[in-house]
Amino acid sequence: MNAPSDLQATLDPSRKSWVESANDSSNDFSIQNLPFGVFSDALNATRRVGVAIGESIVDLAVLESAGLLTLPTSGAGDSVFVRDALNDFIALGRDAWRGVRIQLSKLLSRDNATLREDAELRSRALIRQADAQLHLPVQIPGYTDFYSSKEHATNVGSMFRDPKNALLPNWSEMPIGYNGRASSVVVSGTPVRRPNGQLKLPDQERPVFGACRKLDIELETGFVIGAGNALGEPVACADAEAHIFGMVLLNDWSARDIQQWEYVPLGPFNAKTFATTISPWIVTLDALEPFRVAQPAQEPQPLAYLRHDGEHAFDITLEVKLRPQQANQASTISRTNFKHMYWTMAQQVAHHTVSGCNTRVGDLMGSGTISGPTEDSFGSLLELTWNGKKPLELQEGGTRSFIEDGDELTLAGWCQGEGYRVGFGACVGEILPALK
Amino acid sequence: MNAPSDLQATLDPSRKSWVESANDSSNDFSIQNLPFGVFSDALNATRRVGVAIGESIVDLAVLESAGLLTLPTSGAGDSVFVRDALNDFIALGRDAWRGVRIQLSKLLSRDNATLREDAELRSRALIRQADAQLHLPVQIPGYTDFYSSKEHATNVGSMFRDPKNALLPNWSEMPIGYNGRASSVVVSGTPVRRPNGQLKLPDQERPVFGACRKLDIELETGFVIGAGNALGEPVACADAEAHIFGMVLLNDWSARDIQQWEYVPLGPFNAKTFATTISPWIVTLDALEPFRVAQPAQEPQPLAYLRHDGEHAFDITLEVKLRPQQANQASTISRTNFKHMYWTMAQQVAHHTVSGCNTRVGDLMGSGTISGPTEDSFGSLLELTWNGKKPLELQEGGTRSFIEDGDELTLAGWCQGEGYRVGFGACVGEILPALK
Repeated sequence: MNAPSDLQATLDPSRKSWVESANDSSNDFSIQNLPFGVFSDALNATRRVGVAIGESIVDLAVLESAGLLTLPTSGAGDSVFVRDALNDFIALGRDAWRGVRIQLSKLLSRDNATLREDAELRSRALIRQADAQLHLPVQIPGYTDFYSSKEHATNVGSMFRDPKNALLPNWSEMPIGYNGRASSVVVSGTPVRRPNGQLKLPDQERPVFGACRKLDIELETGFVIGAGNALGEPVACADAEAHIFGMVLLNDWSARDIQQWEYVPLGPFNAKTFATTISPWIVTLDALEPFRVAQPAQEPQPLAYLRHDGEHAFDITLEVKLRPQQANQASTISRTNFKHMYWTMAQQVAHHTVSGCNTRVGDLMGSGTISGPTEDSFGSLLELTWNGKKPLELQEGGTRSFIEDGDELTLAGWCQGEGYRVGFGACVGEILPALK
Repeated sequence: MNAPSDLQATLDPSRKSWVESANDSSNDFSIQNLPFGVFSDALNATRRVGVAIGESIVDLAVLESAGLLTLPTSGAGDSVFVRDALNDFIALGRDAWRGVRIQLSKLLSRDNATLREDAELRSRALIRQADAQLHLPVQIPGYTDFYSSKEHATNVGSMFRDPKNALLPNWSEMPIGYNGRASSVVVSGTPVRRPNGQLKLPDQERPVFGACRKLDIELETGFVIGAGNALGEPVACADAEAHIFGMVLLNDWSARDIQQWEYVPLGPFNAKTFATTISPWIVTLDALEPFRVAQPAQEPQPLAYLRHDGEHAFDITLEVKLRPQQANQASTISRTNFKHMYWTMAQQVAHHTVSGCNTRVGDLMGSGTISGPTEDSFGSLLELTWNGKKPLELQEGGTRSFIEDGDELTLAGWCQGEGYRVGFGACVGEILPALK
């Protein structure tokens, strides 16, 4: 077991690293962060587990074999760090995650000489991010997407249903969610091809087949299940956060025209299944602890199975940038915050499992589009341009109603501490033209 | 490569087996069938791949190690037959499936003495089904459920929307589908716990939490992807059947009251995610070939990406039985046929991937509820009792509007050949009371 004081020390804002780039208060990967990912590099094509620190990655397998990193259950056989996904490490449980966090925080501290002064080991254990390739961090057995921003649900309801009754009655009673497609979740940097599909044009009786004309983003976060639950055994809301390993940024690419034609009555399908992009680093809930804030007041009071005491939102600044193919400069098209979300991650887990549905290590749960209260804080172009009626002026590259071929979309997110940042790194995708 | 004549010979109706129980024309597992599954038994708890024949199972790993079964790519290391799922075998490709089918058909033929006369090997290679435990046959990376019965969609639309415009306009243009929850797909025989959830009662303003009061089945078939497609590379309708390994029976348990309250606008979630039951044996498309028939006429003509020449439906008799806990006798509550389905499996694959969505070996695709044209051929209690308004009279155990605790529901399905049957075995689930 890890001492609570050791875990608390990993959050000390005054702790600095001998990896100097980590001490820059605008670098996502401070020593307080220590997010987990999977990487390879030109010298070693084997995919393995790493932790981001400043502009570098720590190779956990190297530290483990050097005896500097021990796991509570060091099984026989291969290291859980020499894997193409984090699942086996995550499955060791929260004590293991915390133990690694505590040990890494010490090893990377400015006042710790062990690794700092061992040039040979350091050269093997630290890889520059610029030299590494980042891969999908987890093998995802199931992907669920929620719809938990009141502002987003209200905006969409206003546009497509009834502005006077924009929010459906069930929305305020439960974190509405639906099953997504896990196979097409890709890591940041993977190009995304514009989908073809059925489009129902207003002036034609029958749909036509063609490339999506209303391609959109959805600015979301996702969380990764760290401890599953057995079929038939719901997770109580008060226990739910212990089932969460950490968070990522998530872009739920959406083909609005395909969606509008297909989604009644069984929900979005082809409009979403062509790609979902996540950021490569999983930021643990432990690292996010200092940024815990109160969720919005919930009225009506949720049913008992959705109640929890205390604060369950997190203060995470989020932004979206769009860079046209020929432009040097990206335009920030949205800036918002995760703390606006009405339903919490804990409530999402409790609702997901209340029927007895099981979850598994590595399951990904999307927040739903995160829209803030102001027009410049909406999390989709659908809302930002009000379904194309109010095109956005970019700083360079013209205007946008929806995404054009060659556009590069980047989500960013971070918590700003005193002199340090706990950030997610970028979640990027460039749009390729549709297949002919 | 396998000779077409050898493959054709496996379908010869006159071929009989020395496993005499396979020659009974009412036994699902004739020598023309040879479906694949995963089993273990009391003597050997290791899960391994088997093929059903009459009342027995052939242990493929035993035959392989005896040199009687060879695979085109016999890699080093463990046998693909000593696995807890069929995925690795399926991933070898259609030539491998067909090669095994051809070899088994010969080995089990009445006129082949090799295994028949080797008592020692036969005692190791043949296990009585009654002595075996059957497991989920595939590890399922993704589960999609379609909605492809015109009669079912019309019935549901009549009940819940508008009897005059029961079928939504998109229904006739595409095989509507949605993502299901793969984690809770269970094998036949697994008890199913009645889910709790939010129920919106007509006389109350707010929902209450409680046990589902309208628990239902959906009689479906499913098919298993045998060859995936890469992200961004759609499968053409004409090629789609080559991506299908085989079919199962599928019971898409549904909590109608939870569903009605939650499903707008993103589709069913908790109403379906608590359990989906499939039959343990995967019947290959090769075995179903003699039962290929024409699909219903499609009007309007589908868009080009959904067109295929020839016959793509299959004549599979389906039935549902319900046995109350205290009853000795089960009542047949529905009898229908898979051939009524409007959209074909090939069209479902083409539509699923047209956006570029990738599929993977082991993916499960449900047909949607299979309802026939007459009132006794509907595939759900919702339709059979018209949302509880016309309770069913059971032969023993009273009446049913929806499923009661202790009820055992059994789906069965088979193709009837001349003197032989290609059947699926049972797809059974008994309902346990909800958690308090």
